[in-house]
Formats: sequence, structure tokens, C-alpha cells
Amino acid sequence: MSIAISPEVAERLRGFEAPERLGFGSVMAPVMFRAVYQDGCWSGGELIPYGPLQIDPAAKVLHYAQTCFEGMKAYRRVDGSIGLFRPEKNARRMAYSARRLCMPEIPEGMFLEAVRCVTAYCAYLIPAASGESLYLRPLLIGTQPDLSVSASNIYEFYVIASPSEAYHSGNMRVWIERDDTRAALGGTGDAKVGGNYAASLQSVAQLKARGYDQSLWLSPSDRKQIEELSGMNFFAVIDGQLHTPKLSGSILEGVTRDSLIELAGTLGYRVHEREMDIDDLLALIGSGTCSEAFACGTAAIISPISVIGDAGHSVSLPQVPGPVSTALRSALLDIQEGRAEDPFGWMQQVEPASP
Amino acid sequence: MSIAISPEVAERLRGFEAPERLGFGSVMAPVMFRAVYQDGCWSGGELIPYGPLQIDPAAKVLHYAQTCFEGMKAYRRVDGSIGLFRPEKNARRMAYSARRLCMPEIPEGMFLEAVRCVTAYCAYLIPAASGESLYLRPLLIGTQPDLSVSASNIYEFYVIASPSEAYHSGNMRVWIERDDTRAALGGTGDAKVGGNYAASLQSVAQLKARGYDQSLWLSPSDRKQIEELSGMNFFAVIDGQLHTPKLSGSILEGVTRDSLIELAGTLGYRVHEREMDIDDLLALIGSGTCSEAFACGTAAIISPISVIGDAGHSVSLPQVPGPVSTALRSALLDIQEGRAEDPFGWMQQVEPASP
Repeated sequence: MSIAISPEVAERLRGFEAPERLGFGSVMAPVMFRAVYQDGCWSGGELIPYGPLQIDPAAKVLHYAQTCFEGMKAYRRVDGSIGLFRPEKNARRMAYSARRLCMPEIPEGMFLEAVRCVTAYCAYLIPAASGESLYLRPLLIGTQPDLSVSASNIYEFYVIASPSEAYHSGNMRVWIERDDTRAALGGTGDAKVGGNYAASLQSVAQLKARGYDQSLWLSPSDRKQIEELSGMNFFAVIDGQLHTPKLSGSILEGVTRDSLIELAGTLGYRVHEREMDIDDLLALIGSGTCSEAFACGTAAIISPISVIGDAGHSVSLPQVPGPVSTALRSALLDIQEGRAEDPFGWMQQVEPASP
Repeated sequence: MSIAISPEVAERLRGFEAPERLGFGSVMAPVMFRAVYQDGCWSGGELIPYGPLQIDPAAKVLHYAQTCFEGMKAYRRVDGSIGLFRPEKNARRMAYSARRLCMPEIPEGMFLEAVRCVTAYCAYLIPAASGESLYLRPLLIGTQPDLSVSASNIYEFYVIASPSEAYHSGNMRVWIERDDTRAALGGTGDAKVGGNYAASLQSVAQLKARGYDQSLWLSPSDRKQIEELSGMNFFAVIDGQLHTPKLSGSILEGVTRDSLIELAGTLGYRVHEREMDIDDLLALIGSGTCSEAFACGTAAIISPISVIGDAGHSVSLPQVPGPVSTALRSALLDIQEGRAEDPFGWMQQVEPASP
């Protein structure tokens, strides 16, 4: 790596021991990457010990949610090597998210160096069981202390990391959200920004009380078309073919979604990106034409959906996990974890670094 | 006040000198109120020196924008006393905003004590010129360090303060935003949460490049009805009567809006809260039937609108500031600054405290 580390960072790395139970996103790696944007340029890209940020109480991020982030994973592969999955896709999406909130883009080179550096030094923390990984979280926040509603002139970029289990294990019960929306047309739904997630919390709290796991969001203008789950895209298997909502402008373009579309073709499945009317889908599940549904995302990979709940009634999917979801999940994980060839060139190897 | 202060806080208060040029929201008072919510209850309400917060890099607020805030003012009145304007309205709105983002409500008693305490100890900082004030910014953030998308289980509540000039001086040029939206129906537009403001930044950046000051937001579903400006409500004077968009579910219910509706009645103006089609309004301005338009809010009080810009053409208001805007602004400021009786009981006196 081109980034040298301080004795303090080396000591933190050597002294860290992960607990036995990892969960998802709750055990944080002992170091993080940090760079600062001020006076129109980036500086200070370095690894520092993980610890509290000093943020002014008037910082833009705290009041006006000027924040965007990414989620990505580094895998320990079966040959022992470490692989990052499509990091350039995350770099480009983060640039898009940053632009949407009037934040400076993170140069792709710096973004990639940052995630490679954190991955290299935290390689010894990456768990080896299938579905486990080092979850990486690049984060860009506006920190200028000023209460006027305008873009910050100071930004901080971090990459924090968390050795993690899969985000969702088992089947998911999803609830059709017919009242709240997570994002407006002309809003920020196609960017990975904090406000989308804040808007989703109320719906999730309500459905959890009903015994469900995730909200299924509908189109903001008419609430008829399926959009996505919070942080995950939606797929259904209809007559043996894959169907997923086409990008509407208020759906986040998932890296896993994109990868599955490409991968499915090579496995012999036709994929349809189209408007998906929720009531049509419920009818297709009722008639048995739709045999499977699943959510996909970086954190969750593929999570089969067992039940779709709606006010008044709910429908159950017949096969959970079904054969198509299982085949896609295995094919993707086989590439990510090095059990299969990588015909798409998705994996980028990272050499572990020792402190 | 029931809140005792530490020697350090007293020293900060005694040592602080405000610069001559205040601006809005950029000079911060030397102390702030802080309370913490953990294990289901609030504790630690106290004044502390103003300074950086220690926030974990994985805190929910930084990633998922779990933040809401308020804006309110304390005025130095002409008799030298200090008055807070309708603080209970802000307390209740903040409780609403908190619930929308699954955050704990701040008990109204604690909220009011916090703003009164900050006001009392910062009383000596409140500028005396008309339109100037101590701008108070209550802020509630979720700080649990955990990357899963769910509500925080730890919260911090702050009241920071800024001796300030009026937010907008002079006339405003507003631009009709026909593409972006700040909030979805079923979203968070009627709560004062960070994500609404983040979503608005792109529009404001674009219109500033065209020589405009603020976006005029339209209804998210059809973009036909006027909603609000970012952080301000909209009024027009049509045939000598006041018209303002009715609360749509995606408009923030402004304290100044509410106050003006009440005050206008006593000044002999009829007020109509209704759907306001933007193209109808442009035609009424063109024909001279609409004689004035203005924005109102806690920060801005009343800002007359001089121009409404649209792709292709723009319309100018004939009287800027017009007689109705001027009369309303004076009547409201007269109450706030103690030049007139307060028949509504809006002002709450605060006794200055000395460190």
C-alpha cells in the first residue's frame, strides 16, 4: 500500500481482538481512513485509530443531513486471498450521491486507495465462513459549522469497517407500505443519502410490531408500482423468469441488483426490468405463477421473501428459499468467495498488509 | 433558573465577546444545553461550554440522518426585557418531528427549561436592533454506533444559540422548482428533519447560479400546487386578501405562518388557506390581481418576494415591499419586540441570569 501507518495505528491493529459473535455492523475495526476537503481540495488521506469524531454542534451534517455513504464488502476467499467486490461501482455511485447533495466528489483513485488500504490492514479480521465478510462503509459528511441552509464548505471522508455476518439470515417477511414513502420523484431516492433511511424508520418500526422484517416501498406518486426495500432491491420469479422493478429515478441502483441481472443471463434465466404493479404481483403469487421473491443488496446478498403482508391479508411464497434464489445466491457467493471463476472481472484482489 | 452552572461555564460566559458583524447563525454563543437519552430516560440536562461533540463514526445520525431540529428566537424588547416567541409551539413541533423519525420526544418541560436557560445566560448577547435576536437551535440526534438501519437507542439533545441579524434582508427572488422535490407525500415534509434540507440543496445551488435566492417547491405528486420555500412558508396578497397553501402533509407548519394567519384577522385581512396552483398565481400576478407575495419563517420573519422565476420567463411583483407585507411585518415585530400589546399571549419573558 502507498499509505504508511503511524506507530499508534500499528499498535491498535496488533492489540485488537474481535468478539466471537460478530452480528452485522456492530463490531468496528480498530482503524479507519480519513481525508478532509477544504478550500477546494482533498488532503490528509491516512489511516487513524478508530474513535469519536470531533464535530461542531452547528455542523451541516447534524442539522441538514448533508451525508452520503456506501456499503461494500471484502471477502476472505477459499484460497485464503482477500477480494473486494466491484469497488469501482461504489466509487461511482458515491460520486453520484455526493453531487445530488452538492458535496464534492471523492476522486475515484482516492476512494479505491482508501478501501484497499483499510481492507489490507484489516485483512486479519475478515471472517472465513461463507456469507461473512469485512463490511466497508465509506462516509462523506459536511462539517462546516454554520446554521444557514446551504452546502458545507468543509467535508470529511471516512472509511470505517466492520467484520460481519450476513445482514439478514433466514427468510424475510416484508410488508407493503401503502402510506409512507421513502423518497419522492425528484427527490433523493436514487442516491445513497441519509434522509432516505431516516424517512424509512417509522414504517419499519410499525411493521416490526406486526411481526414483519422490512418495508416494501411503492412508487411515490401513485403508490402502485414496487420500488425497493430499504437498502435492498426486489426480484420476483414469474414463470421461471426474473422480474425486477426498472430504475424509476427514486430507486437506488444496487450493485448486487446489477450483478444479478448480469449473472442470471449466464445461468440461463431471462431478466425483465419493468414496472411491477404490486396488486398484479399479489395476484400472480396467489395463482402460483410467481413462485419466488427475494431481496438483494450488498449487506444481505440474497434474502428469500417468505411472506408479503398487506392491510387485511398476506400472501405466502410457496418455495422459501426457492431454486432460483438459491442458484443465484450460490453463483454470486461462489464468485465472491473464490469457489468459481470470475468471468466478469468483478473481484479485485487485495494483498494483506501487516502492521 | 433551576439549572446551576459550573465555574467553567461561568468563565466562558464572562470571557465571550461577539464580533461586530453577526450575520445569521454563524456566531455561536459560548455555552449550550445538553441532555442525553439512554435506557429509556433523559438525564444530565445542563449548560456546558460550546465545543465539538464527540460522535462515533458509526453513529446513526451520520449515516441515516436521524436528526430533527427547531428554530426559534429570543428578542431584546424595547423596555430592555427579554422575550421568547411562542416556545411551546416549537416544543410540540419538535415532539412531532421526533416521533416521525422514531426518536424519543423531548418532554415539553425540559425543552422549555433548556431554551429558557440558554436564553437567560446568553441574554447579554442579544442584539437590540429591530429584526435582530438570539436565534435558538434545539437539536436532537441519534448517536448509537451501529450500522444496521434501525432507530438509535441513544440520543443527545442540544440547544445551541446564535446572536443573529435577520436571515434575509431585502427582497427575495424565488425560482419555481419544477423538477426536484424536497419531500414526498407520505414522506417527512411536515417534520423538521435534516433530510428535507439535504434534498433542497441541489435546487438552491442551481437557482443561485441564475441569480435567484430560494426555491419555490411544488406538490410532490403533480408539481402543480405551491408548497413552501425551504424553511419558509408562502403567502400571496390577491385582491387585498391573504392566500397561503393549506397544510398538505408535505408542508412544514410554520410558527410564523400560524401567527400571521391569526394576526392578519385582527388587522382586518381575510386569510384563505387553500390549494394554490402555481400557474394560476402567475396569471394573477400578470393581471395585477395578485399585488404582493412574501415568504415567512422564524429566521426570515417576512421577506417580500420581488420576482418569481420560471423556465422561459419570470414575473415581477409590482410592490416590493407591498403595504400588506409591511403592515404584517411591523405588527408581528411590534409584538415580538415589545412595541405593541401582545393580545395573543405569544411572548414569554425570560429573566436574564448572570454568570
